[in-house]
Amino acid sequence: MRSIIQNLEESKIREVANSSMGLPDVLAFWFGESDEVTPDFIRQAAIESLNKGETFYSHNLGLPELRTAIADLMTEKHGPSMGAPVIEFSRIAVTSGGVSALMVAVQALVNAGDEVVAVTPVWPNLTAQAQIMGAELQTVALQVKNGVWSLDLDLLLNRITSKTRLLIVNAPNNPTGWTLSRAEQALILAHCRKTGTWILADEVYENLYYEVTQNNCAPSFLDLACDQDKLIVVHSFSKSYLMTGWRLGWMVIPSCLNSAMGKLIEFNTSCASVFTQRAGIAAIQGRESVTPQVVQHLQQCRDVLVSALQTLPGVEVALPKGGMYAFFQLDGYTDSLDLAKRLVKEAGLGLAPGCAFAPEADGWLRWCFASKDLARLEQGVARLKRWIEKNPHPTATAHAPKDKPDESLQLGLF
Amino acid sequence: MRSIIQNLEESKIREVANSSMGLPDVLAFWFGESDEVTPDFIRQAAIESLNKGETFYSHNLGLPELRTAIADLMTEKHGPSMGAPVIEFSRIAVTSGGVSALMVAVQALVNAGDEVVAVTPVWPNLTAQAQIMGAELQTVALQVKNGVWSLDLDLLLNRITSKTRLLIVNAPNNPTGWTLSRAEQALILAHCRKTGTWILADEVYENLYYEVTQNNCAPSFLDLACDQDKLIVVHSFSKSYLMTGWRLGWMVIPSCLNSAMGKLIEFNTSCASVFTQRAGIAAIQGRESVTPQVVQHLQQCRDVLVSALQTLPGVEVALPKGGMYAFFQLDGYTDSLDLAKRLVKEAGLGLAPGCAFAPEADGWLRWCFASKDLARLEQGVARLKRWIEKNPHPTATAHAPKDKPDESLQLGLF
Repeated sequence: MRSIIQNLEESKIREVANSSMGLPDVLAFWFGESDEVTPDFIRQAAIESLNKGETFYSHNLGLPELRTAIADLMTEKHGPSMGAPVIEFSRIAVTSGGVSALMVAVQALVNAGDEVVAVTPVWPNLTAQAQIMGAELQTVALQVKNGVWSLDLDLLLNRITSKTRLLIVNAPNNPTGWTLSRAEQALILAHCRKTGTWILADEVYENLYYEVTQNNCAPSFLDLACDQDKLIVVHSFSKSYLMTGWRLGWMVIPSCLNSAMGKLIEFNTSCASVFTQRAGIAAIQGRESVTPQVVQHLQQCRDVLVSALQTLPGVEVALPKGGMYAFFQLDGYTDSLDLAKRLVKEAGLGLAPGCAFAPEADGWLRWCFASKDLARLEQGVARLKRWIEKNPHPTATAHAPKDKPDESLQLGLF
Repeated sequence: MRSIIQNLEESKIREVANSSMGLPDVLAFWFGESDEVTPDFIRQAAIESLNKGETFYSHNLGLPELRTAIADLMTEKHGPSMGAPVIEFSRIAVTSGGVSALMVAVQALVNAGDEVVAVTPVWPNLTAQAQIMGAELQTVALQVKNGVWSLDLDLLLNRITSKTRLLIVNAPNNPTGWTLSRAEQALILAHCRKTGTWILADEVYENLYYEVTQNNCAPSFLDLACDQDKLIVVHSFSKSYLMTGWRLGWMVIPSCLNSAMGKLIEFNTSCASVFTQRAGIAAIQGRESVTPQVVQHLQQCRDVLVSALQTLPGVEVALPKGGMYAFFQLDGYTDSLDLAKRLVKEAGLGLAPGCAFAPEADGWLRWCFASKDLARLEQGVARLKRWIEKNPHPTATAHAPKDKPDESLQLGLF
């Protein structure tokens, strides 16, 4: 086996999840997945396709009907209404999940030894893929100010030189909720145009964004870029349509990559299943009955969870602008893997350890708040509260009462 | 874009298929896919799963029930009854299609610059994957004797040295139908044990084998190997269960690779869809009602097609032992891409050009005989016959009548 592969970290999230084996009562919030089943009309579209006998190979780049629906959706969100060009059909490639899109993109761009810069903490798949291709990986860490993760843009731009083949950035970010601003995107794009660096933007959480915007989603590089830019934007059906297990995603590519991506998809998975793609078409067609409700519910989840966490002594947590995670610290604990395992065993609470996302995030915990039942979140917080009361850490200090209630507290149920 | 990716050949099969655009009447036999829909009971298993709401992520290595069913199936075919060990659960990894299994295997083993040896002609994905990983690819060509492709074993073994990281071999072979004998497998395995070379065996056609054998399938490296051998065997549901479009496959790995493969599957596609895996479980459970019929029908297709082709002047074709392709030459034609395009336009007949599989196979044509309707094959041959009659090639010579009818002729309907 290659030593690179041997040395890739096993998922620390799975390590924590595995530590729950045999424990009868664990409330799990460790994985990045809603607990809601895919809406019935989407499942029925796949069932209809299966009943029709659509069980053959399809085009490498996806069914034309699906690519058209995606191009129209992307144009609606990131086209002329944002001052950007129409996103043409030829720029859409359908893949077997967002993760496959990311892998194929890295295969297209990164030779062994190429320098790749990634913004961290981040979903570990993004950095692992570059390492699998033999990249020289450099990371630029977000920085914490008052419990909020933010980008030191100068630091990032200084790190990207003409030797940098690829910048990998995920915003809204898993796990921190950090999101790039439009101004930051403009400066990064201008800089990368100069250095000739490709941008691989994982924007799968774009709809899970809780600020008011013109196009109801987070700022996207697509709002600023043209077809000639060295930019690949990756999307997925997983989050916005409750379709994690379907393995369906897409990328928006410069049209000059169209034929290369067709080849690479052939050599990776050949195509997404036709019945899965039919479900994707139904999801896009019926999106008004899914995504706004998903986002509205997630915002409620976020507000309930974060405001409840903020009442706990020693917990430092900020309201994330996007995504489906609360990322927080418990005062006095620096080893998040150990802490997460203790919480499983001693509190029946399953969270993801920050060290799964970057060394600089050790000491942090990620709580996925995509819970159908808000009460589950409240039960989880109650368990954490009891555990903290039983385990007053030497260096932990209870928050002093504030003069004014925290703004976010007003949003929650607590 | 990487020059390696830019230089990867576009599929010449697709180039021929694309040349049919706008032509109303083309009988297509170019793709490696049966024209039969997946059996209903397999589709219903997926539908039931979708109706139950199984739309979430699953284990990276596959559902335990599916892995158990596969381990039992592999043990039944390649275990103690063949003098080989039981194939344990831990050695099974479920993937998003056979092609994904092959890609993940190459990622696990091949660093950029590593020497990889592949036996050709072969399905182009196998050689492309190694190139994507930056391998130094060497090919060992099968040789044609009396119209039959066979392996010069000494040539292959001399090419595999301690510098050879990986041997890639597909048998029964697409496109030639060539199959490794048990004796050849034993010599290759013994040699690779000495040189420390991994073997990646694409055995997806093992059930489509028309010789009489003890275990109703082609010789497999698994019949000879143990868990400690550096061997990965790749399988797919596509051919034996008529499930091409489902994208479901598996590999049998040494158990020491178990954790690495879990990581790599996570970073490539995360998992196969649960409802697709349920279909796979149903397929294995009901295999006696599918695979023997598929194989019996394919054998009929093979016999009808090959015996009909053998009556045509200038056509040289042998009966393939395995697979679902007739691979043949038309006397006097050396440019198979040009010939295949002419046949599309002038005869309404869609075949795959040999050059898609290796330079040494240029001049050959591949005819996929997986046709539900035997008459379609006969219609195709009639079209070829008329075209040959209209295009008597300068160097083509009609076959002289034989004293005895060819043995294969006795098998067909012609």
